[in-house]
Amino acid sequence: MNKDQYALTPPMGWNSYDYYDTSVTEAQVRANAQVMAEKLRPFGWEYVVVDIQWYAHRPGSMRERFQYIPFGVLAMDEYSRLLPDSERFPSSEGGRGFAPLAEYVHGLGLKFGIHIMRGIPRAAAHAHGKIKGTALTADLAADPSSVCRWNPDMYGLRDGEAGQAYYDSIIELYASWGVDFIKCDDICNTDNLVEHSPGAYARKHEVEMLSRAIAKAGRPMVLSLSPGPAVAEQAWHYQKHANMWRITDDFWDDWRLLKAMFHRCELWQDHAAPGCWPDCDMLPLGRLGKGFGEERSTRFTPDEQRTMMTLWCIFGSPLMTGAELTKLDDETLSLLTAREVLAMLPCKARQVLRDEEKAVWTASGPETGTRYAALFNLSDAPAWVGASWEELSLPAAPGTELWTGEALPLREGGLSACLPPHACAAYRFDGI
Amino acid sequence: MNKDQYALTPPMGWNSYDYYDTSVTEAQVRANAQVMAEKLRPFGWEYVVVDIQWYAHRPGSMRERFQYIPFGVLAMDEYSRLLPDSERFPSSEGGRGFAPLAEYVHGLGLKFGIHIMRGIPRAAAHAHGKIKGTALTADLAADPSSVCRWNPDMYGLRDGEAGQAYYDSIIELYASWGVDFIKCDDICNTDNLVEHSPGAYARKHEVEMLSRAIAKAGRPMVLSLSPGPAVAEQAWHYQKHANMWRITDDFWDDWRLLKAMFHRCELWQDHAAPGCWPDCDMLPLGRLGKGFGEERSTRFTPDEQRTMMTLWCIFGSPLMTGAELTKLDDETLSLLTAREVLAMLPCKARQVLRDEEKAVWTASGPETGTRYAALFNLSDAPAWVGASWEELSLPAAPGTELWTGEALPLREGGLSACLPPHACAAYRFDGI
Amino acid sequence: MNKDQYALTPPMGWNSYDYYDTSVTEAQVRANAQVMAEKLRPFGWEYVVVDIQWYAHRPGSMRERFQYIPFGVLAMDEYSRLLPDSERFPSSEGGRGFAPLAEYVHGLGLKFGIHIMRGIPRAAAHAHGKIKGTALTADLAADPSSVCRWNPDMYGLRDGEAGQAYYDSIIELYASWGVDFIKCDDICNTDNLVEHSPGAYARKHEVEMLSRAIAKAGRPMVLSLSPGPAVAEQAWHYQKHANMWRITDDFWDDWRLLKAMFHRCELWQDHAAPGCWPDCDMLPLGRLGKGFGEERSTRFTPDEQRTMMTLWCIFGSPLMTGAELTKLDDETLSLLTAREVLAMLPCKARQVLRDEEKAVWTASGPETGTRYAALFNLSDAPAWVGASWEELSLPAAPGTELWTGEALPLREGGLSACLPPHACAAYRFDGI
Amino acid sequence: MNKDQYALTPPMGWNSYDYYDTSVTEAQVRANAQVMAEKLRPFGWEYVVVDIQWYAHRPGSMRERFQYIPFGVLAMDEYSRLLPDSERFPSSEGGRGFAPLAEYVHGLGLKFGIHIMRGIPRAAAHAHGKIKGTALTADLAADPSSVCRWNPDMYGLRDGEAGQAYYDSIIELYASWGVDFIKCDDICNTDNLVEHSPGAYARKHEVEMLSRAIAKAGRPMVLSLSPGPAVAEQAWHYQKHANMWRITDDFWDDWRLLKAMFHRCELWQDHAAPGCWPDCDMLPLGRLGKGFGEERSTRFTPDEQRTMMTLWCIFGSPLMTGAELTKLDDETLSLLTAREVLAMLPCKARQVLRDEEKAVWTASGPETGTRYAALFNLSDAPAWVGASWEELSLPAAPGTELWTGEALPLREGGLSACLPPHACAAYRFDGI
Repeated sequence: MNKDQYALTPPMGWNSYDYYDTSVTEAQVRANAQVMAEKLRPFGWEYVVVDIQWYAHRPGSMRERFQYIPFGVLAMDEYSRLLPDSERFPSSEGGRGFAPLAEYVHGLGLKFGIHIMRGIPRAAAHAHGKIKGTALTADLAADPSSVCRWNPDMYGLRDGEAGQAYYDSIIELYASWGVDFIKCDDICNTDNLVEHSPGAYARKHEVEMLSRAIAKAGRPMVLSLSPGPAVAEQAWHYQKHANMWRITDDFWDDWRLLKAMFHRCELWQDHAAPGCWPDCDMLPLGRLGKGFGEERSTRFTPDEQRTMMTLWCIFGSPLMTGAELTKLDDETLSLLTAREVLAMLPCKARQVLRDEEKAVWTASGPETGTRYAALFNLSDAPAWVGASWEELSLPAAPGTELWTGEALPLREGGLSACLPPHACAAYRFDGI
Repeated sequence: MNKDQYALTPPMGWNSYDYYDTSVTEAQVRANAQVMAEKLRPFGWEYVVVDIQWYAHRPGSMRERFQYIPFGVLAMDEYSRLLPDSERFPSSEGGRGFAPLAEYVHGLGLKFGIHIMRGIPRAAAHAHGKIKGTALTADLAADPSSVCRWNPDMYGLRDGEAGQAYYDSIIELYASWGVDFIKCDDICNTDNLVEHSPGAYARKHEVEMLSRAIAKAGRPMVLSLSPGPAVAEQAWHYQKHANMWRITDDFWDDWRLLKAMFHRCELWQDHAAPGCWPDCDMLPLGRLGKGFGEERSTRFTPDEQRTMMTLWCIFGSPLMTGAELTKLDDETLSLLTAREVLAMLPCKARQVLRDEEKAVWTASGPETGTRYAALFNLSDAPAWVGASWEELSLPAAPGTELWTGEALPLREGGLSACLPPHACAAYRFDGI
Repeated sequence: MNKDQYALTPPMGWNSYDYYDTSVTEAQVRANAQVMAEKLRPFGWEYVVVDIQWYAHRPGSMRERFQYIPFGVLAMDEYSRLLPDSERFPSSEGGRGFAPLAEYVHGLGLKFGIHIMRGIPRAAAHAHGKIKGTALTADLAADPSSVCRWNPDMYGLRDGEAGQAYYDSIIELYASWGVDFIKCDDICNTDNLVEHSPGAYARKHEVEMLSRAIAKAGRPMVLSLSPGPAVAEQAWHYQKHANMWRITDDFWDDWRLLKAMFHRCELWQDHAAPGCWPDCDMLPLGRLGKGFGEERSTRFTPDEQRTMMTLWCIFGSPLMTGAELTKLDDETLSLLTAREVLAMLPCKARQVLRDEEKAVWTASGPETGTRYAALFNLSDAPAWVGASWEELSLPAAPGTELWTGEALPLREGGLSACLPPHACAAYRFDGI
Repeated sequence: MNKDQYALTPPMGWNSYDYYDTSVTEAQVRANAQVMAEKLRPFGWEYVVVDIQWYAHRPGSMRERFQYIPFGVLAMDEYSRLLPDSERFPSSEGGRGFAPLAEYVHGLGLKFGIHIMRGIPRAAAHAHGKIKGTALTADLAADPSSVCRWNPDMYGLRDGEAGQAYYDSIIELYASWGVDFIKCDDICNTDNLVEHSPGAYARKHEVEMLSRAIAKAGRPMVLSLSPGPAVAEQAWHYQKHANMWRITDDFWDDWRLLKAMFHRCELWQDHAAPGCWPDCDMLPLGRLGKGFGEERSTRFTPDEQRTMMTLWCIFGSPLMTGAELTKLDDETLSLLTAREVLAMLPCKARQVLRDEEKAVWTASGPETGTRYAALFNLSDAPAWVGASWEELSLPAAPGTELWTGEALPLREGGLSACLPPHACAAYRFDGI
């Protein structure tokens, strides 16, 4: 399996985290999958991803003190491999794991993904648990000094035979379940509290081990790395081993984070390619936050939502919506099904300019002769944003605004628009 | 208990680490204590300290792969408190802990010390072990993200009721055993791989908790913090809570480390006071290294050994010898019993000058009217080292060289000597 | 000259910067000196300090663009030494420098101080200017890679004969003028934009050269180093060479800066001694800011002003008021003449506790048997602040509140008070 | 002028620095140009570049103390623009600048380049010199806090009208002289003493200003940025504005530096494109070092020389030889004319693997169907180095070794060779 032969366009899907935190159940996953199949699949959405701690027993029960209960009860097989908590995922009973749920999702014409923490359960290491297919044990695979800063479940793996055997064994299991997408956490940046931490990408060898295990398993499983910000200097390494990697710390519905994403996209603008997608993180749209104790609608204004969708699409980020799909309102649905905007994925994009007040991007679309440009007002007041055709590397041309469908008449001087605060305009130019 | 009312002079003793690594046994501790009582006690040596992993079962048995066996077998009581491994410390059988050994040491007119790692055993946290005197459990006291970089035994403690209760419970136990000295490791600098790491003194609250526990226990137990380098900016905090703290990473018999100690002492020259001793680490003299797989005599030359002793004494460092005392040769014994040199302890010292080639120190001795000065040749060739009386803040005066006993005739220009490479001279001036 | 034989208590005085910025004139200095002599001298205030750019021609004339005009006109003698601008300091005409002004100030029973930038004028280096008493020239003394981040006037000096000769020549000149106090800028922390910058104290050798020059000059001139924060690890070096050094970046009338000073004082609590004073910077009281284009009264509330005075005094900071003394209102005057509070200077202080909400300090006063304690409410709401007698290391005793003069009745439990937001209480205990 | 429309392949040429340091003369430049025209031009070598301080008077005359004489004499026109020192470059007399020399070089069928320091002469700023075409003066363009760490000649330029006008004025002058290549120094990394310095690319705006000035001038002048290491995170910015940028600090004939270059090339492997060339620095071959006071032949062994040439070519680095061409020996000449190796330029390369012992690269050549692979032994002993065809992304194929011309028989298992220490093998595969 060569990982650049799948994920040829940025993966699109739904992820349970933004709404459910650690607490999602099988029924809820199924319900979201149904909505996706009905309403979103025709627009390219296909992955249904169960996020963090599906193996934990009653994971939200100490939510006022801990996001992740320390030393809590985890479901595990005899080979030190985590299993879905059967109270929350009843179909997993009898050692079937996620196979039944994956089958259900596949039956809807969709793909199935799971979240994992890098490493091996701490409980397995302390119990000297077995590793499948070997005489080695978890205590020799685990690195007792490698722990996640924010989650207590795992020890990182040493670079060696025992560690590789363990990763091989879990990836083999996931392949047997029919998993299509693996979001591995605490691996892309293991020190994301500190900007430019010298040790931020200290677990490169675990990325390599996982990548090797997936290649062996022979199933085209997307490898997605979290959390960010990915270390830009190591771009080549992410590109070599992963399908997508987070270029930002956790993203939420806060304008400051959205504005900061323009800086992140600037850094990563040259790094999108088939099988290789810098990832701007989930889209916090629609209904969010229930598992965090504060169910709410997104705090983004409609203009900010369009700005986010436009940036993600012209940049070429994977699109994973965090909205609870069973509660999807019409406005959010229209965002997720804005065919003209989604059509930018994947494109070859370039930032034309950026400062504190504005940003301009341009891109070649996937279809020959199609070009895109997007204007963003990053300031807190209405403002004209624009660029000359020369800056855009475009001939003066008429175009179409993607959100409104309005024709853009030819203007010699360049492309510009007067935009409300935090708003954008995006244009398609054909026959270039 | 106010910790500044004991350890009024720098503690002096023997520590098992340099010779035995993790593997020391009761018989060996007793044998060393006997030698100390016979030969060294009259010169001020009194602490017998059992260093790291006295609770571990067969700790040296995987020495070629690990200094500390990951997820190994540790002796522990029902309250999550580590106990001496009874195979190595037979008198501890039946839950008596170190009480019999402490009693033996006390009987020799000496004091007894132990090493601990900060925190609570990981095994206890995973087992939800009890904490004595409370309904709280180890999983709530342990901080799963706080692990030592180099030892796999413990989790750090959260700042709170459960953590304080645990520290209270172990200190109470140690007091009941008759412990006089506690060397707590992985606490003085928790990131000693990186010079000036911003998180180097990130576990201040554990120092405070330990200090509180000792004050409560009511027994004057010296609190010694390791490893270094201590964070000089936080000098006030070490001084407030501990009796001694390591100002250097592990010190061994290597000239480069000894030369570097002059820089460390420069930084800490104003911080020695009764109950407060910046610590230059153990003295790697005599026979060393058996537990590390390479028994040897110290690699320091005789001149370097005197330079070390002189610096430690004039600076006011605690003196803990690492030499196996049962194999003490005459030369090493003479170093450890150099009464005139040891008499500098404790003094109020000041560095007069230091560069790559030389260093000069001066000090007021503990007795009124006594002043000291020491000249060090840090270069690799014979050299004259000296300073004017004005630089030394001394009147021109005759003196006595401490190592040779030779009288120093009065010289108007100042104090100077021609010294072999790495050698020193030290002088006492009386009636100043 | 041994610098520890003067500045035996923290220097107290007035500095022109907070009100005048770069623009102060001789007449204004004289007017302030008169007020100080009349109203403040009996309370210990004695230094009159002319701050930055007294050598610059029309320094405020481009104030909207530059605080310091780049490549502006500077008065300089034939030996590359800066002279007062004679338009602003008319008595300096004819090469008399500050001698007449110093004489005037001395005549009032006060002392005279000036500000300097470390180094040699860039103009002198480019002109290959002479250095007095040598055949060396400024181009060889200047280090072309050593420039101040924020002021364009000088190059730093290389460590060598030419540099020492230049510093000797300016200090000799200042001594001949009758200067009593030298505030040298861009030397205590040369990279104060970055917390813990590794190069923050990169110009140690210039401190040493200045200190040597002062010792040679034979006049007891206080050496004050700016800006801060001083590098706490290098405390010993500041103590060895300077009389006072700034432990903070520029301090202004903003509560956040005042609250942050408690952290700074915590770090430096053990470092005050005769001749050695960690410096909390000028007191922004009364009328301020005219030279900055916004004359105003201090933004500190009366409670904050008392908190500032109390902290500076119990900690032992030098006191330099920035208030324009000719516009002193009664309230500010009463602060500057609070004899009971000022009486704490100098004391041997110790922080008892500090967190985000409160701080408690205690001190031994200069008189035998006198002890002080201060309680600070750092929170934004009224709060009880207190400590036990044991924490204070004080016997339970009655005392006197210093600001109100009220008697404090004996309370067994300890010392406590209910304080308004940002307010303090300070107590004297006698006969301890 | 779009800078991506020239420098379509990595620039190749000669640079005066490695042999002459600051001291090269016109006659020496002409002599080297002649050799290049005769012997190297047919192989693609075309740029003749005069490196640092062509404007300085007798620049090597204080070589034992300074590489760059501080505050020395520089030739400058009335508009603050540096001119060639006419003692060293006689044809520049009468204000003709480098025009006659450029004309001579062009007459040989070659291109002409010069080195500049970013910024404006300090002497001009202090003299308030004019800026051509404006009423602005140098003191307003210069940023007095922006100085080079290692060269004393210039101040950096503020981002604004005066600065842009100055850069426009010098670039216009260089275009009028016929300059084809500008190597701008102290701009690619302004803090190259510190790995990952946060301020390393602090003068981005000067890159943008220069790039704008070149676009305006309308002459296709290659913009080359020094010194390195370029900040990999800012790859997009270098690519947008420059034609080549140094990915390493100064490179010399030392194996450790050559080995370290493999790490640098790893980081930059995806960033070569027409108009955009990550630069491994000059080739220290043949005779070197006269201006540095130690004329010598390269210290690289023949194997190391081939390793260097192979890495530079397969990676796609510009090739600038530092060898004195009038003293070219046959072996060096054969390296510089190794047509089969040079034919790799430019290729689309990818590192296959790298560790401390070895590296393997593969590339697509500029001709359709041609693929390359290179094996490097980085260890100090003979070793087998190889990779599977799958790792190389190549079908099993016969090939040709580029240095020997030997045919490589088909081996199913992959590509491998037994290589002497520091040696390489490079292969071409056709018809893929």
